[in-house]
Amino acid sequence: MTSLQAFFNSPGFSKPFEFIIALAIITSVIAFAVGTLPSPDETTLWILNLSEHVFVSVFTLEYLIRLIRAEKKTQYIFSFYGVIDLLAILPYYLVMLFGLQPLRLLSLFRLVRILKLTRYLTAMRRFYLALADAWEELTLFFAASMVMIFLAAVGIYHFEHEAQPEVYRSLFDALWWAIVTLTTVGYGDMVPITHAGRLFTFGVLLTGLGLIAVPTAIIAASLHTVRERLAEETKNDDYNV
Amino acid sequence: MTSLQAFFNSPGFSKPFEFIIALAIITSVIAFAVGTLPSPDETTLWILNLSEHVFVSVFTLEYLIRLIRAEKKTQYIFSFYGVIDLLAILPYYLVMLFGLQPLRLLSLFRLVRILKLTRYLTAMRRFYLALADAWEELTLFFAASMVMIFLAAVGIYHFEHEAQPEVYRSLFDALWWAIVTLTTVGYGDMVPITHAGRLFTFGVLLTGLGLIAVPTAIIAASLHTVRERLAEETKNDDYNV
Amino acid sequence: MTSLQAFFNSPGFSKPFEFIIALAIITSVIAFAVGTLPSPDETTLWILNLSEHVFVSVFTLEYLIRLIRAEKKTQYIFSFYGVIDLLAILPYYLVMLFGLQPLRLLSLFRLVRILKLTRYLTAMRRFYLALADAWEELTLFFAASMVMIFLAAVGIYHFEHEAQPEVYRSLFDALWWAIVTLTTVGYGDMVPITHAGRLFTFGVLLTGLGLIAVPTAIIAASLHTVRERLAEETKNDDYNV
Amino acid sequence: MTSLQAFFNSPGFSKPFEFIIALAIITSVIAFAVGTLPSPDETTLWILNLSEHVFVSVFTLEYLIRLIRAEKKTQYIFSFYGVIDLLAILPYYLVMLFGLQPLRLLSLFRLVRILKLTRYLTAMRRFYLALADAWEELTLFFAASMVMIFLAAVGIYHFEHEAQPEVYRSLFDALWWAIVTLTTVGYGDMVPITHAGRLFTFGVLLTGLGLIAVPTAIIAASLHTVRERLAEETKNDDYNV
Repeated sequence: MTSLQAFFNSPGFSKPFEFIIALAIITSVIAFAVGTLPSPDETTLWILNLSEHVFVSVFTLEYLIRLIRAEKKTQYIFSFYGVIDLLAILPYYLVMLFGLQPLRLLSLFRLVRILKLTRYLTAMRRFYLALADAWEELTLFFAASMVMIFLAAVGIYHFEHEAQPEVYRSLFDALWWAIVTLTTVGYGDMVPITHAGRLFTFGVLLTGLGLIAVPTAIIAASLHTVRERLAEETKNDDYNV
Repeated sequence: MTSLQAFFNSPGFSKPFEFIIALAIITSVIAFAVGTLPSPDETTLWILNLSEHVFVSVFTLEYLIRLIRAEKKTQYIFSFYGVIDLLAILPYYLVMLFGLQPLRLLSLFRLVRILKLTRYLTAMRRFYLALADAWEELTLFFAASMVMIFLAAVGIYHFEHEAQPEVYRSLFDALWWAIVTLTTVGYGDMVPITHAGRLFTFGVLLTGLGLIAVPTAIIAASLHTVRERLAEETKNDDYNV
Repeated sequence: MTSLQAFFNSPGFSKPFEFIIALAIITSVIAFAVGTLPSPDETTLWILNLSEHVFVSVFTLEYLIRLIRAEKKTQYIFSFYGVIDLLAILPYYLVMLFGLQPLRLLSLFRLVRILKLTRYLTAMRRFYLALADAWEELTLFFAASMVMIFLAAVGIYHFEHEAQPEVYRSLFDALWWAIVTLTTVGYGDMVPITHAGRLFTFGVLLTGLGLIAVPTAIIAASLHTVRERLAEETKNDDYNV
Repeated sequence: MTSLQAFFNSPGFSKPFEFIIALAIITSVIAFAVGTLPSPDETTLWILNLSEHVFVSVFTLEYLIRLIRAEKKTQYIFSFYGVIDLLAILPYYLVMLFGLQPLRLLSLFRLVRILKLTRYLTAMRRFYLALADAWEELTLFFAASMVMIFLAAVGIYHFEHEAQPEVYRSLFDALWWAIVTLTTVGYGDMVPITHAGRLFTFGVLLTGLGLIAVPTAIIAASLHTVRERLAEETKNDDYNV
């Protein structure tokens, strides 16, 4: 199991450091969310901002240490983790200087440090293989879904526009209805009331639900098969339970 | 992989032309949608219509060129792509002459030019095989779903009609409720309020959700198997990753 | 394929007769539905009732013919199709005599005549085998779902009762909310508004959706496997496409 | 089939006793639910409470008998079922003494007595194996879902905050919307109304639904495979239907 080995052999910083990264991400995210409140609690905001100052200081220090410890400076700076680490602290200084709050979200990139991409690289490769494996079906179903949603919108506009001119104002509203209905979200902001419109909705749901649900099921099935095949090759005797 | 070969060997027009077709379809669709707006922006409409004029001119020219280049004229006219190409431009002239806006949607047929049906023919054949493979289960589950929806409607009408005579007016309203609920769309325009009605809904959801979700899952599983079997036959050594 | 043979060899009445049965069922169902309308159209109702009279006459005649043609009378009466045929006409006379409208729904039993149960017997057996195969998982997930729904209700009642005493009046209302939410129907008649309630809902959805969706997927997978296994045994060379 | 043997060989109390446990759990649960009603029916409550008194007396008696019959007292008290049995009666006395109603829910632990955990131990082990088998994919998809929900919230807050300041008040409200939408619950309490917001929602649904639905499908597929593998080992000849 090369991924597990990679995990245990990952150089330098360990579990507690990952915990600090997680804390920092959560703090940054919460600070961003609290900042959007109409009247945020001043104390909470103060604490969150202070924590962020601390975290960014730690990360800046970490970045500098890594840079110094690295034999080839430029190689680290442009390496995958080097870019990630920079992306996680640079925005903070940009926010301080120019006040671009949304840039804070770049701290989400730090997630890859916790997830230890090397570990999940195999899982991602499997996902990529599954996508490639099912690509033709996915394209076909995607195109069919788009056409389905469009035709559903045209149909419901035809049936409901006269009965509810304020609700189904144009084809754009009808498209919104089609999307919300065929994904089974069903907000209820636009509901057919005519008998023809309801019968049409019934037909659309009957054929459309399948169209939209099948791709997900196919990806899952492909992913499962790819995983099994790869597993058979590497760990042939792991299931003798 | 015959489908890929067919793709690269497809005669005549190439990638940039497909891009123009895509643009033309999107323009036509947007022009149709904008046309349904209560008070569409005149300039936008003018630009969209102009673009459509240009696109149809291009496609008419293309059709004529294809017709001239074809050795057997009638064979091209009645060939699959010949009919598609005609269907994509003919409606435009009909719209201009008789003002039948919805005919514009026939331009959607052009999608098959982009999707290069020859390429997806195998994917479609697999889908057909999967459907044929699971046909008996699908028919059975479809019949069971219909009966389920009908009985759910009768039940909820029985339980809710007295409590909400304005909402559950007749069995037709109850049928609408049954469809919206069992597909988990749940608009919220009709909601049981009696204890008996809610308990009944609980039972219906418990048994009904499975009934309606199983066919999709079966198609996906069948499609997956058919794809694997066909793949094993043609590209036996494609997964040695 | 014994089921197909059974279908083509089924004694007596053929395709056109099945069509009449379908028409009769639909008429009966529509007549029942129209009868629940607040002010049904008199003419429509009259036509529907007349059609039903005709259909029941035909079926009564058919029943008598079958009874006369049968060598062993009592054996036919108590045979599967004999009971079905009687159930489809008997209620009609009961409705005429005692006015029990819902009994009309028994005409739905006639569906089995169209579906030609002999043909779908294998499909049903497969379904039964799949259910038996996945029985332990289903029981476990069902029990877990019930507990999940109950705990979700207790939790949301705890969090939302004070904030919305008129909406989350008692645990029964909270149970209704839990069912509607965890099946993703989401009517919107009861919506958490407190931060704690929403966070709780988030957690419940994260763990609950899987609990409720997994059984359906398992049945589908089992059904698929059972079908494949049975197919391998009987028609080993059906997929050489 | 060792689990079935374990079931029939389970020492002491049998089927009727399980029925009593089921009754007791249901009574306790209903009593708890009825107790939350604004103005519960006094008689019902009295009957429910009386039944609970009886059931708890029976269970206390049962506990004492088991304790006396057990050769090693302390071993039984700290055994799995010993703790379960105590948890099912102890809360009752605590409720009587201190009035902590929610403690009643601990009676749910008695469910394990009915489910006879020994019997479902294999099913649970399979579930555990399936989870372990699909662990990397699940972690990856979970992390991706969390990021997806967060980014969807940031996006919709950006697009809808100005148009509906009272609905999308802060990022916390937007997060609630993202969760309710991406799980397809769709209460309808928060609905995008701007064109940009709706287009964004469309994109989010297209990519997000898959992200959230795939893990469930993977668990189901894994569970199915694990079950098949284990079945092949133990009951190689169970499917010769």
